[in-house]
Amino acid sequence: MAESLLHTLIETLCCLPGVGRKLAQLMAFHLLERDREGGRRLGDTLLQAMQRIGQCERCRTLTEEALCDICGSGKRDSSQLCIVETPSELSAIEQATDYHGLYFVLHGRLSPLDGLGPRELGLDLLSQRLAEGEVEEIILATNPTIEGEATAHFVSELARAHGVRTTRIAHGVPLGGELEYTDQSTLAHAFGSRQLID
Amino acid sequence: MAESLLHTLIETLCCLPGVGRKLAQLMAFHLLERDREGGRRLGDTLLQAMQRIGQCERCRTLTEEALCDICGSGKRDSSQLCIVETPSELSAIEQATDYHGLYFVLHGRLSPLDGLGPRELGLDLLSQRLAEGEVEEIILATNPTIEGEATAHFVSELARAHGVRTTRIAHGVPLGGELEYTDQSTLAHAFGSRQLID
Repeated sequence: MAESLLHTLIETLCCLPGVGRKLAQLMAFHLLERDREGGRRLGDTLLQAMQRIGQCERCRTLTEEALCDICGSGKRDSSQLCIVETPSELSAIEQATDYHGLYFVLHGRLSPLDGLGPRELGLDLLSQRLAEGEVEEIILATNPTIEGEATAHFVSELARAHGVRTTRIAHGVPLGGELEYTDQSTLAHAFGSRQLID
Repeated sequence: MAESLLHTLIETLCCLPGVGRKLAQLMAFHLLERDREGGRRLGDTLLQAMQRIGQCERCRTLTEEALCDICGSGKRDSSQLCIVETPSELSAIEQATDYHGLYFVLHGRLSPLDGLGPRELGLDLLSQRLAEGEVEEIILATNPTIEGEATAHFVSELARAHGVRTTRIAHGVPLGGELEYTDQSTLAHAFGSRQLID
């Protein structure tokens, strides 16, 4: 079948992560045969979202307003600032924890080869924020990869320069994990970072 | 996060088959963070497709033209007409076989309880088509379900009324399948439909 528009639709659906040709075909036929209204709504929402969703002025997470719900809420503890790499990690922390402080989203990690330096990660904005003096604790929640660690180190130096206390979320054997099946570097790290039981 | 537009985008992506909340979230963040252009293109294509893709006047498959590529081609054998339930099944036959005849798409199967009668399946159109006298063989490729069989029976009666020969695609043990793991009804059918080897 070389139906051009149907063909284009299937090709375009393939740009979604986790969607191959077969699933894209299933999606296209499903929408056309059984859910045109849903297809129209999805098309509309996509166009609006791509156009209107930008970054929060304060924390750089995704929002269509000037300030995101968290920064704008007024009920959050502005003395704590959690640094994450992406909006989806912010969302994961919101869902899993009862953290009530604020966030700052880097949109990446330091990676000079990819052209990601301190400016691209908004560290000038972060520096201004620390200079305001409201933040008392920086919580580093970047990923435990080489670039993530380098980024955490860089941010902690920035915090030190502003006299702000820095903490890093714990890394080790995941809950429910078994030592036998935990990878060597995680196990070595967990062993080295053992804590005194009171 | 109750970011309204982002939230709506995630909800709306969930209307795609095979997409749950988690994957929808991944898709939304992927498009917003890494592929806005792709998101815009997808939104556009969806709106266009939902609006412009309709049914072929002759075979009722999905197309944005009056006639689909197959009906409009002129190179296909118009003496053979294959009856399928859905456009995706038409597409599956096109990809798997070297069939060179034409198709007729029912968009469903006879199911009075769901309000699907002969009219909804376009059987009046099919009847007109048979009356034109060009079709010499009807190939029934409806699914081997109860409703599919009932539909096949109904269509074969229609064909008989017009004096058109009717064939049904073979059902039995799938190639590469093993008898031991073939379900009982398929095996019983395959056994009953055994054919003489010349």
